[in-house]
Amino acid sequence: MKKKVAIVGASGYSGEELVRLLLNHPHVELVAVTSRQNAGQTVAQVFPRFASHPKAKTLRFTEPGIDEIAAGAEIVFLALPHGVAAEFAAPLVQAGRVVIDLSADFRLKDAGTYKEFYGHDHPAPDLLNKSVYGLPEVYRKEIKGASLVASPGCYPTSVLLPIIPLLRSKLINPHSIIADSLSGVSGAGRKVEADYLFAECNESVRPYAVPKHRHLSEIEEQLALAAGAKVTIQFTPHLIPVNRGILTTVYLAPEKHFKTSAEAASLGKKIAACYQAAYGDEPFVRLLDGNALPDTKNVVGTNVIEIAWRLDPRTGRLIVMSAEDNLVKGASGQAVQSMNILCGFPETAGLV
Amino acid sequence: MKKKVAIVGASGYSGEELVRLLLNHPHVELVAVTSRQNAGQTVAQVFPRFASHPKAKTLRFTEPGIDEIAAGAEIVFLALPHGVAAEFAAPLVQAGRVVIDLSADFRLKDAGTYKEFYGHDHPAPDLLNKSVYGLPEVYRKEIKGASLVASPGCYPTSVLLPIIPLLRSKLINPHSIIADSLSGVSGAGRKVEADYLFAECNESVRPYAVPKHRHLSEIEEQLALAAGAKVTIQFTPHLIPVNRGILTTVYLAPEKHFKTSAEAASLGKKIAACYQAAYGDEPFVRLLDGNALPDTKNVVGTNVIEIAWRLDPRTGRLIVMSAEDNLVKGASGQAVQSMNILCGFPETAGLV
Amino acid sequence: MKKKVAIVGASGYSGEELVRLLLNHPHVELVAVTSRQNAGQTVAQVFPRFASHPKAKTLRFTEPGIDEIAAGAEIVFLALPHGVAAEFAAPLVQAGRVVIDLSADFRLKDAGTYKEFYGHDHPAPDLLNKSVYGLPEVYRKEIKGASLVASPGCYPTSVLLPIIPLLRSKLINPHSIIADSLSGVSGAGRKVEADYLFAECNESVRPYAVPKHRHLSEIEEQLALAAGAKVTIQFTPHLIPVNRGILTTVYLAPEKHFKTSAEAASLGKKIAACYQAAYGDEPFVRLLDGNALPDTKNVVGTNVIEIAWRLDPRTGRLIVMSAEDNLVKGASGQAVQSMNILCGFPETAGLV
Amino acid sequence: MKKKVAIVGASGYSGEELVRLLLNHPHVELVAVTSRQNAGQTVAQVFPRFASHPKAKTLRFTEPGIDEIAAGAEIVFLALPHGVAAEFAAPLVQAGRVVIDLSADFRLKDAGTYKEFYGHDHPAPDLLNKSVYGLPEVYRKEIKGASLVASPGCYPTSVLLPIIPLLRSKLINPHSIIADSLSGVSGAGRKVEADYLFAECNESVRPYAVPKHRHLSEIEEQLALAAGAKVTIQFTPHLIPVNRGILTTVYLAPEKHFKTSAEAASLGKKIAACYQAAYGDEPFVRLLDGNALPDTKNVVGTNVIEIAWRLDPRTGRLIVMSAEDNLVKGASGQAVQSMNILCGFPETAGLV
Repeated sequence: MKKKVAIVGASGYSGEELVRLLLNHPHVELVAVTSRQNAGQTVAQVFPRFASHPKAKTLRFTEPGIDEIAAGAEIVFLALPHGVAAEFAAPLVQAGRVVIDLSADFRLKDAGTYKEFYGHDHPAPDLLNKSVYGLPEVYRKEIKGASLVASPGCYPTSVLLPIIPLLRSKLINPHSIIADSLSGVSGAGRKVEADYLFAECNESVRPYAVPKHRHLSEIEEQLALAAGAKVTIQFTPHLIPVNRGILTTVYLAPEKHFKTSAEAASLGKKIAACYQAAYGDEPFVRLLDGNALPDTKNVVGTNVIEIAWRLDPRTGRLIVMSAEDNLVKGASGQAVQSMNILCGFPETAGLV
Repeated sequence: MKKKVAIVGASGYSGEELVRLLLNHPHVELVAVTSRQNAGQTVAQVFPRFASHPKAKTLRFTEPGIDEIAAGAEIVFLALPHGVAAEFAAPLVQAGRVVIDLSADFRLKDAGTYKEFYGHDHPAPDLLNKSVYGLPEVYRKEIKGASLVASPGCYPTSVLLPIIPLLRSKLINPHSIIADSLSGVSGAGRKVEADYLFAECNESVRPYAVPKHRHLSEIEEQLALAAGAKVTIQFTPHLIPVNRGILTTVYLAPEKHFKTSAEAASLGKKIAACYQAAYGDEPFVRLLDGNALPDTKNVVGTNVIEIAWRLDPRTGRLIVMSAEDNLVKGASGQAVQSMNILCGFPETAGLV
Repeated sequence: MKKKVAIVGASGYSGEELVRLLLNHPHVELVAVTSRQNAGQTVAQVFPRFASHPKAKTLRFTEPGIDEIAAGAEIVFLALPHGVAAEFAAPLVQAGRVVIDLSADFRLKDAGTYKEFYGHDHPAPDLLNKSVYGLPEVYRKEIKGASLVASPGCYPTSVLLPIIPLLRSKLINPHSIIADSLSGVSGAGRKVEADYLFAECNESVRPYAVPKHRHLSEIEEQLALAAGAKVTIQFTPHLIPVNRGILTTVYLAPEKHFKTSAEAASLGKKIAACYQAAYGDEPFVRLLDGNALPDTKNVVGTNVIEIAWRLDPRTGRLIVMSAEDNLVKGASGQAVQSMNILCGFPETAGLV
Repeated sequence: MKKKVAIVGASGYSGEELVRLLLNHPHVELVAVTSRQNAGQTVAQVFPRFASHPKAKTLRFTEPGIDEIAAGAEIVFLALPHGVAAEFAAPLVQAGRVVIDLSADFRLKDAGTYKEFYGHDHPAPDLLNKSVYGLPEVYRKEIKGASLVASPGCYPTSVLLPIIPLLRSKLINPHSIIADSLSGVSGAGRKVEADYLFAECNESVRPYAVPKHRHLSEIEEQLALAAGAKVTIQFTPHLIPVNRGILTTVYLAPEKHFKTSAEAASLGKKIAACYQAAYGDEPFVRLLDGNALPDTKNVVGTNVIEIAWRLDPRTGRLIVMSAEDNLVKGASGQAVQSMNILCGFPETAGLV
């Protein structure tokens, strides 16, 4: 029998992507989608692109009421602004529902860091210990039994997956990390602000939130866990005129210096082995070989992250590059992947 | 009386941009444009966007013949592939013409570096000492009397202008430099290759030439001159779906560590003063203040480079960002700026 | 047991889309993909976006040899240039294979029209009578038993589906038809020509092939069949800077003039009923209602065509608009839909 | 001495374009720019792309006060929403100022048509007779002495210039006109609405306002004046993902039927002569010849409109196509052209 799932806050881009994935998922039934602004409308009216799905004309958006959601759904996805998500998560977890939260509310273990980066006290600090960071390639085991999954941010996913195995294997200097990220405009959400108008983004490329973007908080907390020590990194996001996709280029200093080509070859083997061990069997991590480099167009619409790396014998640095769809592997696809693990479905169900 | 100028190889994007600038320049007369493939056609036919200019229907492309060019023009712009440019430059300089070369042929002082990066012997090593690197903000004096100007590449301009003043002032560690650049597709030239088709570039973002792009050679040679010592940098170019524009983000370690906010403020003052001294009076360098960050849309179509910087007290790094139009400040506009200096025209003539 | 299928000429955009659809189709096995230029490479190498599919690393492109294809596959898709497709179709049909041709070679019944529009004699006129025009909503019955399906062009699909029911119902004047179409750049194929470079298409909109585009031939032949009389239409294609999608706006004069709002309402009911009868149960035709108008972003990546219409009481005209993905409903998706019908698979198999 | 000019409502896209043109105009001095939301900020802050202009750091936006504007400026441009513009125009004209209005408020002669299309009574019907429709190629003489110029809309310019000469010469049937227009997103203004977000417009093409767009009112009034009889046309606008540019394709029935190639040649000569007589000497109308067709990329950033036409012997129709920059020839450039005429400046001053 199919599990009943609900999406709270389904009107943004990651909400819409969840609707797409869950409508077509073989093991769940989407029973409720909520949105204050769209309440009363059908999925077909709000998202014309899904109108041909058999449920799109009957499933209607409702006002987000916690009791009704808890009554109807076993699994609840929250696609809400940070701060608001916690208001829903607490009573739903209390009521025994599985909550998969796409906001930043439960990604950090440290309420102090939350306050530093989000500017207000954490709304439900008691739940921080309960929540599992929903990065399946790293926390598959913990996700399995979780009742509250904090699905990672789009930038963090693109930065963490390339770096964590290297840090765990002590191959890189944790103080050397510089991550330069390029994101499509849907990363800003369906925010109706002048900065995201077509004519302001098209034919434009720009950095923003330099030097302290909020996503640093969860990136650094996760890297510290991988390194076993505090990690502070450089991170610069840029807005580029594509709908979807994040391309991240990470600059790293290997722990072991290399100069001769023999040293480079030896280090290269270790890095390759490290990634192979970490991701060789992962269905959604694609390790590129040969001359291939990541390209967002090869992952858009999929739950795959591409990773490639190069050693530079001239500078002694390691460069790792990743590409993902910010709305799929960087948000809703990864959230569904967590649900699959949590519920014992095949991990790729509904994602290929 | 107007100086007579010619453009050899005017069919590519920087050639086209030169046509635009020189057709409208108050102190020169464009007397010849050459292109093997377009010979016989008028400027109006080849570049419909210029068709309303009074000369566009009479000025015809010709086959590139050195003698005819030398006979008709006092100043010759070369917008040719590297290797080919040298074949024209040598006899033209010999004949007493001023040559402004947009290729890479005369940008390096060291023929060995040329061979390392371009894969063949330098075609005219004798001229390397004669040529002046056409970065007006750095070599204004040298450009003044030059007979051969090697106009810088688009990436180098975007990297050098932000870094050179800091290096000269010993404010940054020359071994720390990481430059991450994003370029519009016109940067690849009007190359008819599958990689640059619309449907391959649109909705795509990708790094390339990692870790050793050819432009590294001139960037490092110029940085070494500024630092007074060999400099090796990290440089990663990316292709992004805009027609024009380069956005470069440079990561730097200040020579002097800073931790307290007082140290940061003190270092910040030095950096501000350094840039002010270097560029405060430059007509084409725009130092951003307040919260402003560079955006390619603010410079496209102009000869301006925008520069902003931030100190990150968390990491101890300095981040400098620049935006330019790769075809104007990164190529043809800068070449015209050099011509203005060389000929004693007002430096901004034809460029605002 | 799965049917074995092959794709001949799989390196273009519709070939690539066929690879995507057939790799994931539940009832077929893709056993061969051919391409002269890519022979020897795996699907994963040629199309990195499919690299995570289990078959992508083992299935290799081969040289297109008719005997080998005939030996291995029961169904053969031809994604070849017109003229070349016929060379493959004839022997394959002869050998008893089912051929689904995406080129223009077998779309026309009249070899003379072929010569008029394609500039050379038809290469296999004997097969013209055997072929079925693969527009499932119109020729479902004929497709069922076919051995040679001529899959429609992208523009024709977007024009024919909105008009044919109106013509059949005698609701519109067949001499009044004006179709204005806007196509994404992938419609030009993966042609490496300067006109399709990113910087030539981006920030550009332009008509082309005015007034006589080749697709007119099949549009008019099909409309004539629907009208029972010769039909000549106006058709203007435009190139717009999107990867995929065709938006067609058709201007029509109703057979019956309407002026009063009562007349308009009465005619409107007939048109609505006509479309409902024709497409009400079609899985891939989405009749829009209310205020909705077609938008390519709602159909891209799907096999759906959206259709909406408006009566203009001011001018007495009927305006019908459609949106489709030129590579799916306009090419490869529709070809798979025909295969599904032909083979007795569920019509939507592999397409939702 | 330079004339003093002001822009009221300078924060939208056509306001911004006016700022660009007037800052660089040789015969005027921009003395005031107003905007409620930007009051207090400098031009450099609001429009960073103009920051290098010497006046950009000193000229500040002010609240729009009619008395102050009247006191300081001889010529006032209104770039305000319709309805609001009239509130400013009336007292300014009363005070003896020249007003050039970019809104729709004074484009119609008939207040009833205004009410039909704009939904409310005209706010200043007395001024309708005073205003001149600012299409210089048609009303140059009237503009000369005007005190109130109603600058045409972007779509109307792209439709009227191609059709008016044909109507005046009785070459086409006034009841046959169908205009299909494609506009870049800046045409919607800097409206902060979800429909114009980057991710809603990019990779999307869609018709809107079918079948009755507001601009029909001024198009039809002007066509009626040219034809000497009431004209009702079909007009369908579409939104396409470019920043700027309108491409219009007009379908027309010649008054005289043509079938033989001799008839077509004879009619073609008349059409060519008609356009040549109307626009042969116009600085901003580019009549394309040979195989050339309009392309928005050839006019963006300029005040030029490109026009090409084709006779279709198959259908007996005439197809005329135009391309313009919606913000320049379609708005601010044309307004400056009117000012040049009105003030006796060279007509191309500040526009090339």
